[in-house]
Amino acid sequence: MSVLIVGSVALDDIKTTTAEHRDLLGGSASYASVAASFYTPVSMVGIVGDDFPEVHRDTFRNRGINIDGLEVVQGKTFRWSGEYEEDMNNRRTLSVELNVFEHFSPKIPTRSRQTPYVLLANIAPSLQAHVLDQVEAPKFVVADTMDLWISLARPDLLALIKRVDMLILNDSEARQFTGERNAVKAGRKILELGPRYVVVKKGEHGALLFSRDNFFATGAFPLEDIADPTGAGDCFAGALIGYLAKTDDISFESIKKAVIQGTLAASFNVEAFSLKRLERLTREEIDIRHGEFSRYISVNGAH
Amino acid sequence: MSVLIVGSVALDDIKTTTAEHRDLLGGSASYASVAASFYTPVSMVGIVGDDFPEVHRDTFRNRGINIDGLEVVQGKTFRWSGEYEEDMNNRRTLSVELNVFEHFSPKIPTRSRQTPYVLLANIAPSLQAHVLDQVEAPKFVVADTMDLWISLARPDLLALIKRVDMLILNDSEARQFTGERNAVKAGRKILELGPRYVVVKKGEHGALLFSRDNFFATGAFPLEDIADPTGAGDCFAGALIGYLAKTDDISFESIKKAVIQGTLAASFNVEAFSLKRLERLTREEIDIRHGEFSRYISVNGAH
Repeated sequence: MSVLIVGSVALDDIKTTTAEHRDLLGGSASYASVAASFYTPVSMVGIVGDDFPEVHRDTFRNRGINIDGLEVVQGKTFRWSGEYEEDMNNRRTLSVELNVFEHFSPKIPTRSRQTPYVLLANIAPSLQAHVLDQVEAPKFVVADTMDLWISLARPDLLALIKRVDMLILNDSEARQFTGERNAVKAGRKILELGPRYVVVKKGEHGALLFSRDNFFATGAFPLEDIADPTGAGDCFAGALIGYLAKTDDISFESIKKAVIQGTLAASFNVEAFSLKRLERLTREEIDIRHGEFSRYISVNGAH
Repeated sequence: MSVLIVGSVALDDIKTTTAEHRDLLGGSASYASVAASFYTPVSMVGIVGDDFPEVHRDTFRNRGINIDGLEVVQGKTFRWSGEYEEDMNNRRTLSVELNVFEHFSPKIPTRSRQTPYVLLANIAPSLQAHVLDQVEAPKFVVADTMDLWISLARPDLLALIKRVDMLILNDSEARQFTGERNAVKAGRKILELGPRYVVVKKGEHGALLFSRDNFFATGAFPLEDIADPTGAGDCFAGALIGYLAKTDDISFESIKKAVIQGTLAASFNVEAFSLKRLERLTREEIDIRHGEFSRYISVNGAH
């Protein structure tokens, strides 16, 4: 089955304590689409300005991503600039220029309106809802969000999550959203707000998956060095929906495996700036790391 | 096989945001011994004053723990008083009275000197070493430690860990000990200092197990409410060594299972103050939670 992914496409300037890069391909839809493309055909919906470099478009094409829904308008592409502190857990946004994104109204190409698997990557919940309005009877819809929307667009977000199958957010966002300090309580409280599944991402500590009657916890893949954490969450969501679409299996067991694939995609993504690592990632590398990770988290036999 | 556990035996005053209790049974040897007693025969070595209540001694006897090595001297029992903040992750020590513990020189009863499994629960590394000097050819020795000894007794700790099979510490302590911000790097760096295995405990985020050529990560059991986190780490260590002794299997696969048992023991312990939960815990409850937890962390089949 194929996947429809809508979100931001951006040009990023990123600074860590050891390196600095400009005009990188960024944005939630970019990261998520490339990650999903390892599993299944992807159609991407987003907007860029006429300054968007052809080389970034090639990144999508090389991964076989359908970019018919990538609108190009006169003006400058959305830009984000951020800086990471030494431990990579704290990010400071230096500047945001919405540019063409300011008047973005996502239009789903007619051919893509019946896509069964939909990822509403991180953008304003009102835009995510606008996409949902255009999709016909999707089988599984995942929404990703962030602290900004929890603060600034809570009513929109609350309305949206009643319409999606899964909400993905990180642990501090889950706490912010619910006012619960305990991540388990927070995850379960979000379930009561609408979605059938909630994934709470915990960065280096892995992820928690909640449903009304089930639960799954996994650690992260153990990495000693992180080049750039940008987009890890987007890659997680992209690989997760990509795996579900590939298998066309939305049982809890399958969603657990999708969480593992999301964890792996995130682990590769942080090894280089922007999408540099995923651009040269192979299916074989994913399989090898999957085997390694499976050993790291499995306990065999009875006690 | 049986287990020898040495550490502190204390009277604790503990305050959380919702409750306050005085003269509780505490200390690393107390928690660890009770947790280990669910798996295998335990001999405990420690010291108390003549004020130590008989009811606390009953707690050990009721669990079948051999307390021949629990020295009683004139004076007051070691006392600790602490307070937890609302999220239970931050603890403030209000007071410490060493009392009889100040001149403690652990003496291993002759009968216990050939115990194959030894847990050096959290006390000064010089005392832990002194215990090791008295033990004859142990099969597996685990040492637990804490931030205090990393700051105040680093040379002793460095000398000790060359002589043990496994060091257990929490993630902030692993960072403090090695100067590495990354917990994976920190864990691997400690391996280079001597022990064959390192366990990095991460509280609500679970635990990491390192060996030179292997790795294991597990989440914690998902708990919504925590009454009192005191002793969780001691119970983890106690159940871990207890499981290893019971199975007499020190393969990596067995150590993984021991880490799971430690995780479960810690999860029960935090459900009530002091050892109240473990005092009424049954083997059946452990088995039920083990089954539940196994489902929570397992992914079946190929991807």
